[in-house]
Amino acid sequence: MINITLISFLGPKGTFTHEAASMLGDELIPYCTIPAVMESVASNETKYGIVPIENSIEGSVGVTLDSLAHKFDLKIYREIIIPISQNLIVNPGCKLEDIEDVYSHSHAIAQCQEFISQNRIQPHYAVSTASAAKGIIGEESKAAIGNRKAAELYGLEILKANIQDVDNNETRFIVVSNEYHEPTGNDKTSIIFSIYEDRPGGLYNILGLFQKHDINLTRIESRPSKKGLGKYMFFVDFNGHVDDDVIRDIIDEIEENTYFLKVLGSFPEF
Amino acid sequence: MINITLISFLGPKGTFTHEAASMLGDELIPYCTIPAVMESVASNETKYGIVPIENSIEGSVGVTLDSLAHKFDLKIYREIIIPISQNLIVNPGCKLEDIEDVYSHSHAIAQCQEFISQNRIQPHYAVSTASAAKGIIGEESKAAIGNRKAAELYGLEILKANIQDVDNNETRFIVVSNEYHEPTGNDKTSIIFSIYEDRPGGLYNILGLFQKHDINLTRIESRPSKKGLGKYMFFVDFNGHVDDDVIRDIIDEIEENTYFLKVLGSFPEF
Repeated sequence: MINITLISFLGPKGTFTHEAASMLGDELIPYCTIPAVMESVASNETKYGIVPIENSIEGSVGVTLDSLAHKFDLKIYREIIIPISQNLIVNPGCKLEDIEDVYSHSHAIAQCQEFISQNRIQPHYAVSTASAAKGIIGEESKAAIGNRKAAELYGLEILKANIQDVDNNETRFIVVSNEYHEPTGNDKTSIIFSIYEDRPGGLYNILGLFQKHDINLTRIESRPSKKGLGKYMFFVDFNGHVDDDVIRDIIDEIEENTYFLKVLGSFPEF
Repeated sequence: MINITLISFLGPKGTFTHEAASMLGDELIPYCTIPAVMESVASNETKYGIVPIENSIEGSVGVTLDSLAHKFDLKIYREIIIPISQNLIVNPGCKLEDIEDVYSHSHAIAQCQEFISQNRIQPHYAVSTASAAKGIIGEESKAAIGNRKAAELYGLEILKANIQDVDNNETRFIVVSNEYHEPTGNDKTSIIFSIYEDRPGGLYNILGLFQKHDINLTRIESRPSKKGLGKYMFFVDFNGHVDDDVIRDIIDEIEENTYFLKVLGSFPEF
């Protein structure tokens, strides 16, 4: 019997998520939304699922955070960080002066605003960078913004590479699973919590627990709790594994001082 | 001589921002992007500009935060909070079973995901709720999601009202100006800062300053600093006016402990 590990990813093929997923294995199955990827893992159709969680320019991917917080009880099993390079993709032989319209995911459009406005091209939103590429096939006045994989996949050409406004453009992807990753000695833990709004210094006191135990926070991100303006959930990443005694103690103390706490996983640092 | 106060807003007409702007005055001028609204105020073409900053479900409006942080030296002069009610807008006489495609801003689509998937309608992104409404005129199999104003403006009908998934859906808009608002006795102050990543407990120490002076934080939001993953700016709102001695002391202390600090304004609480 051959043991094949199925991995779901946010499709279609040719997206940056596909690029990240290719680093994990070959049995890759595209799903069309982030919740659908997570559902495939929760229902054991696939063993791992890979979705974007954070871009260094655009910030968090809200659907990923909300799905982890509210919809699924999945664990973050790994993280993968890849540099994002955006390219102007056109039909073979097209020139820059022919291009009137450009299509891409809203994040990719936002990342290339200077290039778009300097060249007086009209931007349009597409569901993904790959579907934008697919949509311009045969349309000579149209371009897409996306990665090299998308251009190859649809027989298109890269007219101009690296058109993003800012360097330092990286995206962090997470691999979700039904299981915790075992400790490796160099791990991070990810949690979400909601504080009592009527208790002063709520967040301050929680951060103090990490300070007291000399645990380094690698990320702190706020997100609306969907219960009204000014009410937040906090996504916090820190060094250590939930199997470590000190981390377990901190988590117990946080639990006593918050009305919602979820441990999203412990996984090796990338 | 008649003194007319010109107010810019994120257009086109018929958006939720237009609805919020209508509460301020009548000389309203639509601009097509958030930076264009801010630029019109910075260059004194208009006296005030109004843009969305935060939605209770979807979170912060990244372009607004980034423009305040990096591009313009404007002050937040006022805030306006309005409840968001999303409606399914169709051509007169159309029925739900005729509708195959629905168009709206990505936030509005996200807010109505349950309705869209239950009714098996294909979602598409548009630049704004109003442009979505304009785009479906005469197209009987297409619907838009937006507010009552958009339906009225384009001779369309509301087929189903309040189709958003969650209640508590409110958007906070800010009015930007070149001037500070004078103290009213019931004010909030908004600041942005970046902490030194190499100093442990950076955010913890800053929050401690507010705790020490018993100043209540009403909002804390992180945002990538665009300098790489894990490097953040923090947007913090708290009670008090920059003209208050205690607030001035706190701001001086924050300045000594951060490498970037910007006071975005003091304004009456909504």
